Amino acid sequence: MEWTRKDLLSLYDLSPEEITFLLDTAEEFKKVSERKVKKVPALRGKTVVNFFVEPSTRTRVSFELAEQRLSADIVNMQAQVSSLKKGETLLDTVRNIEALQVDLVVMRHSTPGAQDFIAQHLKCGVVNAGDGAHSHPTQALLDIFTIREKMGRIKGLNVTILGDILHSRVARSNMWGLLKLGANVTLAGPSTLVPREFEAVGVKVCHNLKDAVRDADVVNLLRIQHERQAAGFFPSTSEYARFFGINRETMKLMKPDALIMHPGPINRDVEITSEVADGPNSVILEQVTNGLAVRMAVLFLVAGCVQK
Amino acid sequence: MEWTRKDLLSLYDLSPEEITFLLDTAEEFKKVSERKVKKVPALRGKTVVNFFVEPSTRTRVSFELAEQRLSADIVNMQAQVSSLKKGETLLDTVRNIEALQVDLVVMRHSTPGAQDFIAQHLKCGVVNAGDGAHSHPTQALLDIFTIREKMGRIKGLNVTILGDILHSRVARSNMWGLLKLGANVTLAGPSTLVPREFEAVGVKVCHNLKDAVRDADVVNLLRIQHERQAAGFFPSTSEYARFFGINRETMKLMKPDALIMHPGPINRDVEITSEVADGPNSVILEQVTNGLAVRMAVLFLVAGCVQK
Amino acid sequence: MEWTRKDLLSLYDLSPEEITFLLDTAEEFKKVSERKVKKVPALRGKTVVNFFVEPSTRTRVSFELAEQRLSADIVNMQAQVSSLKKGETLLDTVRNIEALQVDLVVMRHSTPGAQDFIAQHLKCGVVNAGDGAHSHPTQALLDIFTIREKMGRIKGLNVTILGDILHSRVARSNMWGLLKLGANVTLAGPSTLVPREFEAVGVKVCHNLKDAVRDADVVNLLRIQHERQAAGFFPSTSEYARFFGINRETMKLMKPDALIMHPGPINRDVEITSEVADGPNSVILEQVTNGLAVRMAVLFLVAGCVQK
Repeated sequence: MEWTRKDLLSLYDLSPEEITFLLDTAEEFKKVSERKVKKVPALRGKTVVNFFVEPSTRTRVSFELAEQRLSADIVNMQAQVSSLKKGETLLDTVRNIEALQVDLVVMRHSTPGAQDFIAQHLKCGVVNAGDGAHSHPTQALLDIFTIREKMGRIKGLNVTILGDILHSRVARSNMWGLLKLGANVTLAGPSTLVPREFEAVGVKVCHNLKDAVRDADVVNLLRIQHERQAAGFFPSTSEYARFFGINRETMKLMKPDALIMHPGPINRDVEITSEVADGPNSVILEQVTNGLAVRMAVLFLVAGCVQK
Repeated sequence: MEWTRKDLLSLYDLSPEEITFLLDTAEEFKKVSERKVKKVPALRGKTVVNFFVEPSTRTRVSFELAEQRLSADIVNMQAQVSSLKKGETLLDTVRNIEALQVDLVVMRHSTPGAQDFIAQHLKCGVVNAGDGAHSHPTQALLDIFTIREKMGRIKGLNVTILGDILHSRVARSNMWGLLKLGANVTLAGPSTLVPREFEAVGVKVCHNLKDAVRDADVVNLLRIQHERQAAGFFPSTSEYARFFGINRETMKLMKPDALIMHPGPINRDVEITSEVADGPNSVILEQVTNGLAVRMAVLFLVAGCVQK
Repeated sequence: MEWTRKDLLSLYDLSPEEITFLLDTAEEFKKVSERKVKKVPALRGKTVVNFFVEPSTRTRVSFELAEQRLSADIVNMQAQVSSLKKGETLLDTVRNIEALQVDLVVMRHSTPGAQDFIAQHLKCGVVNAGDGAHSHPTQALLDIFTIREKMGRIKGLNVTILGDILHSRVARSNMWGLLKLGANVTLAGPSTLVPREFEAVGVKVCHNLKDAVRDADVVNLLRIQHERQAAGFFPSTSEYARFFGINRETMKLMKPDALIMHPGPINRDVEITSEVADGPNSVILEQVTNGLAVRMAVLFLVAGCVQK
């Protein structure tokens, strides 16, 4: 197939073939880097702006390294110092970036849909690096890439996503990507964080940890945000750890070769004990490594569709 | 002619021939980039420090992209994290930068004249990226470049600069550059923001919008700062919009092909309506694009005069 | 000799031969840069992360320029925006950096020993850019490099380190490095800042300025921190200036060719007058320049020992 999109906004928009093509391209980039070829000239002479209106070290550094390995020119822009504070509209800010003859904008924003809106108005490519609780497609792609690499397939696998589903763009993007590729998706956690309405889109909803993990081939844990819990929400972090934390005992309920995943940063002894995080089932650091290949693939493919 | 200055501090210092030479050089760089040649090796092996003691995204990013396209090595330094807070003098900070074998310092500072002072004491080149309300020469050069490109000349044109002239380094730099090249300059706005004393340097001062725009070939609008107005200054932003904002009705008073310019960031519906900002007379985004070529020209010419 | 360490953590760990080898390597890099060769491909294809959990402009910029001149790929990470705030452990943060296939981490941290701990757990190389009041090995190496360059040797020289020794990682690293190379080290300053216990490791402790400088071949001044003094500590900055500041009168007590050194940023008229800081005995800016060569040497040598 041929890639035809100048933007990567959401896995919901993509066909199964497009997702598979992204994963296959990432696999090629991973092979190249395993042959100790650190840099390829695929984006030489292209300029990428990392425009982060919401702070993020982890994702920004991963994108920046991917861009360097594609030999792009890179400029970082962060919200604190941006013109947004001076009353300029977001669209004007981004039009200004485009007028600087930039090829790609990698953008994080706290408002769901910000990148979709921007992408419609720009000729340059837009890669969504997270928009509010809506979508985080490159995180989901690297999760799915890691599952496919370890399990050899996605179709028919039982994948449980466990935690604060309601506020998680990672959960949402994983869900759409996995469903499109034929996995059986279970969303699990306390009922305050995992509303039953999710069933309407074709996933299982589960409020009991044992049921959620028993048949899982993959358990993808989400971070429980201290910030939220501090405000008196139910469950508190200690309640969460007691009822939904993954520990040595929980592991005994699971398939022996089930994968334990986490998008990071992990809260040791809240959603996961150190024993599990650092144990043989955990692929948490491999996810980070795969993020590079996935982001190289995304940037490479969308850049090829930008008309200049 | 030959360029002989290691610093670009103010258009006031330059001869008409020097300004024209800068504009011609920028024209060459623009032609190169229109031929899809994104990078030239003109500053390969040179190190540029972007030293911004006052925050700025727009100008910093434009300089950084210009430096990348000249193949320079780039380091960003910002005030928040700088040693200035530890009681070091500005001159000591900059001497330290120079001792790191840096070739050019692009500097923004909130104190008028800071860059002039620094430039006298350093062997490396200094480019003024804005000093308080004093001077912003590269912004004025890109404005004048855009006028010349659109109108084919500067001499004899009627250029109106409209807004908060008193606090604007952009107005001041435009004024000197345009006067040197033979334009007729009108400074316009409410009398609180446009003192009549400006007449002494050879410009017209005008406190009435109709008179200010009627014969103008170019109207360059300045941003009205929300910050100032919030403090109870006269006029408020809504008063300003009513008496000095450019809208569909104002456009009818003007020459049909008059240029509408703005250094950004724009406040839609304060100094300009969206209809005008996005309309056929507006060259606002072209100014941004021309900023790249102008900054490449400035960096290229001053770098050639730095003795190492 | 052959360099075998993947980390540079402290001069205390190194043998005299290793320190000398580092200095000799730095000398080679300095010669290369004096031949106007700004960049060498020594770290091409290697990725360096500058991970500064404590703010620093001076050291970060010096490392970044050294990395650019070695042709490394560079990513900057700062504490304010890091995941550390989200409750992640430091080791997890750094393991994530390593999982991004980074070769070297240049790290500053406010906790003494943080880098030692990290280095034990990572395969990538770790360069200590300052850890609390413990160690700042590249600063000490550039100080010692400058002394050796000016004096032709270290062995047998009388070196006085003057100021707030108790809280200074610079003092501590200089002390170990100089002792290993055979210098006679005097630590001097008020008794509140220079405890007599230091004598136990083989240095002289001196609470009287005249005695401290009379026989010195080198006087290395430390910064008196305004922050500390503001809190009512004894001595205040004015008391310090009066009893321990270096000025024209103090210089008369010293050997005529004694070197005056300072790691910066200097407080003019506190620990040193402008006359002395800018006078013929001062090598303060040469220290800054030598920092580049020393950091190139360190990065080059440790990178060669990283197993990937």
